Amino acid sequence: MLERTLGVSPQAIVGFGDDISAISLPGGKAAILKTDMLVGSTDVPPGMTMRQAARKAVVASVSDMAAKGVRPIAGLVALGLPPRLTRKDVHDLAIGLRDAQDEYGFAIVGGDTNESRDLTISIALFAIADPGQLVLRTGARSGDIVAVTGEFGDTSAGLKALLEKRKGPRDLAKPLYDAVFYPRAQLSLGLKLANSRTLSASIDSSDGLAWSLHELAKANGLGIEINTIPVSKSAHDFAQRYRYGPEKLALYGGEEYHLIVAVKRHKLELACRAARGKLKPIGVVTKEFDGVRLIRSGQTVNIPRKGWEHFKTR
Amino acid sequence: MLERTLGVSPQAIVGFGDDISAISLPGGKAAILKTDMLVGSTDVPPGMTMRQAARKAVVASVSDMAAKGVRPIAGLVALGLPPRLTRKDVHDLAIGLRDAQDEYGFAIVGGDTNESRDLTISIALFAIADPGQLVLRTGARSGDIVAVTGEFGDTSAGLKALLEKRKGPRDLAKPLYDAVFYPRAQLSLGLKLANSRTLSASIDSSDGLAWSLHELAKANGLGIEINTIPVSKSAHDFAQRYRYGPEKLALYGGEEYHLIVAVKRHKLELACRAARGKLKPIGVVTKEFDGVRLIRSGQTVNIPRKGWEHFKTR
Repeated sequence: MLERTLGVSPQAIVGFGDDISAISLPGGKAAILKTDMLVGSTDVPPGMTMRQAARKAVVASVSDMAAKGVRPIAGLVALGLPPRLTRKDVHDLAIGLRDAQDEYGFAIVGGDTNESRDLTISIALFAIADPGQLVLRTGARSGDIVAVTGEFGDTSAGLKALLEKRKGPRDLAKPLYDAVFYPRAQLSLGLKLANSRTLSASIDSSDGLAWSLHELAKANGLGIEINTIPVSKSAHDFAQRYRYGPEKLALYGGEEYHLIVAVKRHKLELACRAARGKLKPIGVVTKEFDGVRLIRSGQTVNIPRKGWEHFKTR
Repeated sequence: MLERTLGVSPQAIVGFGDDISAISLPGGKAAILKTDMLVGSTDVPPGMTMRQAARKAVVASVSDMAAKGVRPIAGLVALGLPPRLTRKDVHDLAIGLRDAQDEYGFAIVGGDTNESRDLTISIALFAIADPGQLVLRTGARSGDIVAVTGEFGDTSAGLKALLEKRKGPRDLAKPLYDAVFYPRAQLSLGLKLANSRTLSASIDSSDGLAWSLHELAKANGLGIEINTIPVSKSAHDFAQRYRYGPEKLALYGGEEYHLIVAVKRHKLELACRAARGKLKPIGVVTKEFDGVRLIRSGQTVNIPRKGWEHFKTR
């Protein structure tokens, strides 16, 4: 809706529809811009502290930069604070922002504070990059290998554990809660992969594995055929105990900040080396169909375009 | 609170505490960054359309850039949309964003859409500037002339008219409502003044005349002595009719987007010429006291630090 109304700017090298926006600067470089808003009522699960919420708001934006191979230089934060918050809450929130800026090596240099009915933490990040080095959502070709930087399901299992009060034993719950309360953006991995020049396209998985695969396929006008669903061991154990489908947890989660990349076929080994073993091939890009399919043991299953996105019908 | 916790970044030429933030770039230029959040429950008065609200959200950020003499190049928008909004509401909101980008000559190149309990429009603007040409809040000297780019009171009179249902005759109400629903950022005036190299400091008046004068004084460790309060004719007429204090309307309003500047004393004429008659001297910067005083007809009155700012005690 926004994109259609606002139009396409001639200055924008990358506009709506990718993980970041990019503007060409005099001298050949590009300014990379990203905004992401965390909202209390929809993005902060029960039990999450203000510090964790603020840190997570930043992680979400950093993850988008990571997917493009860009290191953020500076950030801004606009806050909407419900009147019920105490001074300590706001201090904790500031600490969470500091956690994130220290963790990812940039500085939050300005902000705006407001009163709001819903806790709102809106982050804007800024970076400078060589436009030729950006790894966009587009650029994949039929035959490219689709790979991921981690296993999926911990976040959705953790949310189910929290929301449906299925805690289970401590050993089981800990990695799931960590995934929810302390997500990590794959910044150094994203930078290493981009520097290795082995990728043809990339997206972060914050809208869920299935949804993000669909976005990647659509952006390239191609299909993605996967031959495995990368479920984490902890999500698998949780699913077994409480009789969930482990692969559903992995496919239809969200706010799980891995990278999903298309690797040029003849550069797969180089990419895996650059990622130091953290890259797992799960399928290929294909021109044979649109959308996303799982082909396993001779059977083909359509992976529906479902996932985590607010107002997705707009 | 944020500034104290996040610390001062060595990269930030300008950080928290000014209207914008600035980061030094390789090659000597600076990236100028600004974020501003509009919140439905506190910033959208009764009768304001979605289109006007979205436009106003952008105007608020543009005004801060205007005060520094910087033209925005690109913007981002993060939206928090209550579920009750219709598709048409969201379309109108996008039209309002387009109004603003067209009016001020830049492009909104990316965004993020969320569900929220409170309508939230968070704008981030980006520009490139020569750091030596930025007109900061600091830089004023004792003896500099304090001047404003417009008269005050229309916005607070308009808000009173709306909130207390004091409409009055149409001729009276129209300029007041226009000020509320269709505020304008003084971008071209800010650019002309900055280019004239006549200013020593500048701030936008969005937190109200009194508050902004105090901010300007404090940023420079000096005082401001004003000899007149620039009340608009329409605010004056409204005040007379409904027995408000016209000068209070002018002093303690907010979201009125004029510029308040300190002009180097010997360059006042040049500044007035650059502003084509739109600059009105109202006082001087002084080292004789802190804060803001009105000295008129031999009498001295302290102007209290009151105005429009959420969470000001934090």
